[in-house]
Amino acid sequence: MARCVIFNDFRVLFDAFARLFVEHYYRTFHSNPHALGGLYLDYSMLTIEGENIQGAAAIAAKLTSHPFQLCAHAISTVDCQPSGHPGGVLVFVSGSLQLGGEQHPRKFSQMFHLIPTPQGSFYVLNDIFRLNYAQVY
Amino acid sequence: MARCVIFNDFRVLFDAFARLFVEHYYRTFHSNPHALGGLYLDYSMLTIEGENIQGAAAIAAKLTSHPFQLCAHAISTVDCQPSGHPGGVLVFVSGSLQLGGEQHPRKFSQMFHLIPTPQGSFYVLNDIFRLNYAQVY
Repeated sequence: MARCVIFNDFRVLFDAFARLFVEHYYRTFHSNPHALGGLYLDYSMLTIEGENIQGAAAIAAKLTSHPFQLCAHAISTVDCQPSGHPGGVLVFVSGSLQLGGEQHPRKFSQMFHLIPTPQGSFYVLNDIFRLNYAQVY
Repeated sequence: MARCVIFNDFRVLFDAFARLFVEHYYRTFHSNPHALGGLYLDYSMLTIEGENIQGAAAIAAKLTSHPFQLCAHAISTVDCQPSGHPGGVLVFVSGSLQLGGEQHPRKFSQMFHLIPTPQGSFYVLNDIFRLNYAQVY
């Protein structure tokens, strides 16, 4: 099965790509959050704490609004798999973040579905985020 | 954009489908875990606590091995989005589970990528699972 071979042979490449994306995403979140919109397209989807948002502009507005605009992320794990979409990659992140106005960090999980562009870059088609509502030790 | 219209107009249907799948998945996990293999195909992928496993038989063997074979899940949230793959659905679950041999539940997050079959059913192409390593309150 071709997809098996690709998954196994290019495991290191997938992992490295996922980690680079995650570093880029959360660095942008902290340093220049308004640039996050550039990672999404008009039909991209964000589900954040159960709220469904569609389109780069609306997603960027949400991510730069309270309480997300002042949060600090610490990444614990990054997992990834090819999604079956040509060139698509699923990235699954767990970690903790400190929301604006809160004293203690919270655990979170987030998944991204990344799709290649004809220009040789990637955009986020799917983004689902959940706080885990448990204290971090 | 056609994908936007589908996402918004069929939101209720997506949510209902995702919840039905999640209920079916964890009920099978508890009542007949060896049947879980029937939800995966030979090129399906499971990444569980960083370990990558491929193929229905290997995945079923992992899910029925210690410490997973005796665990009890409690689901907190179910989110979903269309994945861009024709008919594909991404399902993102958070909850807690009690592993075999452990006294206290742990938080977990899990995502599934469901793909329709020509027979009118769905199989799991992607499955990524992480414990969140925080005590449940």
